[in-house]
Amino acid sequence: MTRASLVEEILKKKSYLCVGLDTDLQKIPSHLLNEKDPVFEFNKQIIDATIDHCVAYKPNLAFYEALGPTGWESLQKTVAYLPSKIFKIADAKRADIGNTSTFYARAFFEQMNFDAITVAPYMGEDSVKPFLEFKDKWVILLAHTSNPGSSDFQLFGSVSGKPLYEEVIRKSQQWGTKENMMYVVGATKADKIASIRKLAPEHFFLVPGVGAQGGDLGQVSKAGMNRSCGLLVNASRSIIYKSSGKDFGLEAGKEAKSMKLEMSEYLDKYLSGVS
Amino acid sequence: MTRASLVEEILKKKSYLCVGLDTDLQKIPSHLLNEKDPVFEFNKQIIDATIDHCVAYKPNLAFYEALGPTGWESLQKTVAYLPSKIFKIADAKRADIGNTSTFYARAFFEQMNFDAITVAPYMGEDSVKPFLEFKDKWVILLAHTSNPGSSDFQLFGSVSGKPLYEEVIRKSQQWGTKENMMYVVGATKADKIASIRKLAPEHFFLVPGVGAQGGDLGQVSKAGMNRSCGLLVNASRSIIYKSSGKDFGLEAGKEAKSMKLEMSEYLDKYLSGVS
Repeated sequence: MTRASLVEEILKKKSYLCVGLDTDLQKIPSHLLNEKDPVFEFNKQIIDATIDHCVAYKPNLAFYEALGPTGWESLQKTVAYLPSKIFKIADAKRADIGNTSTFYARAFFEQMNFDAITVAPYMGEDSVKPFLEFKDKWVILLAHTSNPGSSDFQLFGSVSGKPLYEEVIRKSQQWGTKENMMYVVGATKADKIASIRKLAPEHFFLVPGVGAQGGDLGQVSKAGMNRSCGLLVNASRSIIYKSSGKDFGLEAGKEAKSMKLEMSEYLDKYLSGVS
Repeated sequence: MTRASLVEEILKKKSYLCVGLDTDLQKIPSHLLNEKDPVFEFNKQIIDATIDHCVAYKPNLAFYEALGPTGWESLQKTVAYLPSKIFKIADAKRADIGNTSTFYARAFFEQMNFDAITVAPYMGEDSVKPFLEFKDKWVILLAHTSNPGSSDFQLFGSVSGKPLYEEVIRKSQQWGTKENMMYVVGATKADKIASIRKLAPEHFFLVPGVGAQGGDLGQVSKAGMNRSCGLLVNASRSIIYKSSGKDFGLEAGKEAKSMKLEMSEYLDKYLSGVS
């Protein structure tokens, strides 16, 4: 998907919500366990209930890999079920030496029709660039994540000047553009989002950590929005596990709608013009 | 597998060779493509031909994921085919927030019976620790990799003092021990291996980059060996693609044996005593 199409969808739906499909057999409603493919059945009902309120879905690969080959089949079916106007993110946090990253890119961009993959920056340029060679596909590079451990290495170097995550954002802008690269910036670092926005004024940020992890949607939106919105805010558990009963789809839909309505206010308030 | 068992196998076989199973349908001998599962058939013949000369195998996940669910089946069969005395490394370079890393750990340690997984350090402590909670299983943490891009961020901070990769080695030793944590140290950085050995005197290093990537086995062994050997040296393409004909197994076996014989010399020369 192109950047222009993504921005168009955001403005049309008045939402920059991404729903995280962290589908865990231990957490989905028990009546689904009788289905032939409980993971896909859960995802399908979540998608049906939330698709009017979001612009993106983000399955986290760990949950599917933990189930072996059947997990991959559930994932493939889920991606195939999503229409082309939905931005599809493989939250895989991959990266390897150049030759090998190309194989990961094929897995997610060709074997499955994802639009984007999250990528870990530690191995540097030749581990990231192979993903950027696929037309209309995106790298979403980990910059400053939402977990407690993000302070272990992402802030390294800060005593003597800029921290590692700033170097990641600075250097990687030589590899990709605002048309094919986004950054992961955790919502639990809302105080940092404004300063990160200055480092990458035009790029989209994928923002996890709103909802179960405690990030504040209003603060994130105020600090992070640019003139093309520039934000995809992800919520996973707070939406998909809102109810553990047969009404899980309905409740997920309500929660997604409530986030969308809040987002539509922020779009009216903070979006100064579209480029 | 415990550290004691691994060291025992190394001394028994007089080898610290790890064979990388980067199995690519474009590169395997064409006569195998008629097999029902060409990837497993290739791996099986490579394993049969090399198992007397190595102590570990390391499938790189990218090559299997690129094939979709069938790739995962080939991988599962490959891991199941390996005997318990072989150290089995999932070269997956995973890591995610704590909750999610646990699912990756289940995928590789429970769904498949790997002994170890390579892990990327960027997300910090809570992304690494879940892997360490599995008994007799190992984290192999990326420290200083063998690819050109390793200089982009792994050396960050060096102007003002120590580089990031040293911080990774220093800090992560508070999370795991020499009994459940190794480090990836690229052979193409042979000049650095001696200094990295000082930072982690007792830990095993997984050393990629010998062979196709140009690292020198003698230099690596001299610089990196400790009193328990402390090295697993990986070669992938230089062994498994030594021949593209029907004799690929035979040629892979010869190449592995030649590396083993060289290793047995280095063990005699540099191993001062076993702990």
